Amino acid sequence: MYPKAIEELIESFKILPGVGAKTAERFALYVIDCSEEELKRFSLALENLHTNLKVCSNCGNYCEDEICKICSDSTRDKRVICVVESAKDIIAMEKTQEYNGHYHVLHGTISSIKGIFPEDINIDSLLSRIQNDTKEVIIATNPTLDGETTAMYLEKVIGDKILVTRIAHGLPMGAHLDYADELTLIKAMENRKKMK
Amino acid sequence: MYPKAIEELIESFKILPGVGAKTAERFALYVIDCSEEELKRFSLALENLHTNLKVCSNCGNYCEDEICKICSDSTRDKRVICVVESAKDIIAMEKTQEYNGHYHVLHGTISSIKGIFPEDINIDSLLSRIQNDTKEVIIATNPTLDGETTAMYLEKVIGDKILVTRIAHGLPMGAHLDYADELTLIKAMENRKKMK
Repeated sequence: MYPKAIEELIESFKILPGVGAKTAERFALYVIDCSEEELKRFSLALENLHTNLKVCSNCGNYCEDEICKICSDSTRDKRVICVVESAKDIIAMEKTQEYNGHYHVLHGTISSIKGIFPEDINIDSLLSRIQNDTKEVIIATNPTLDGETTAMYLEKVIGDKILVTRIAHGLPMGAHLDYADELTLIKAMENRKKMK
Repeated sequence: MYPKAIEELIESFKILPGVGAKTAERFALYVIDCSEEELKRFSLALENLHTNLKVCSNCGNYCEDEICKICSDSTRDKRVICVVESAKDIIAMEKTQEYNGHYHVLHGTISSIKGIFPEDINIDSLLSRIQNDTKEVIIATNPTLDGETTAMYLEKVIGDKILVTRIAHGLPMGAHLDYADELTLIKAMENRKKMK
């Protein structure tokens, strides 16, 4: 139907999340009218992404140098380590501007179904990061089956040496009770706190 | 906030229609996990788009050769020319599989506000395409101010030599009267036809 050049572009746009055939078509047809310069910038950004994007050798966060900005920031408390599944989670967490400790990116979760075991993800380097002055390890993996499994595994491995905490699960702020799923409500009831 | 490599990609994704900061962010973060091969294919499709995409020297449609598939198709009636604003419109029209004539792409519309005059769009080549055996020129520019202006201009220029028709405007099929805008309803009433 379309000339090959457009067809190839549509196929590429289709790999994006939530982009189906229709949207990919719309994107491709729109991009035709872009300037040569814009296209060049776009294609270079894609081509050089993996080359330019480095992973911090300490915590696994995305960075431009050997060590990420958070790890090299001396004002942050390195005695607290927040463990997340992916570097994207750090970005979400940093937006709150509340947390002042360090992070550790697992780059995945333990998953028996997918055949991912503790040695396949970034756990070894976490263990070697935990030192005598480490106060707390906060497990902030997602509240999914694999996330919970990973949290429990970590607690088992390091829980006797160090304080291991799990981020709270419950009703999101601003949510309505009647729209919440059962599991969230059960968690919200379980984790209730005495009001002051 | 993000490393430069991601930031650049987000900026590029933002040029796509309907893609704001949030979606661009989501796209960029997703693309990080794509394989090197996928990224390469994507970036090449963008980079080579303008080079590989040719414009038919006859009608202005997108094509891979000098002359597009429609113009070189001998089974199509070249005595009927459907005038559209952009090559995308041909794709929409061809999907109906009803029209068997030729096309002519204006690559724009006359627009007094934007300072686009008849000589700035692909009108000259349309005039030279109209020959003695041309039966009909169907104006299928969009029913917008600029589209209507262009339609009226074309009618004025070639209307005395040839049959010039305008595609119908009215209620879209499957639409509900109470959701239609006033202008569409006025057009639908104006263009009413005697039922057989």
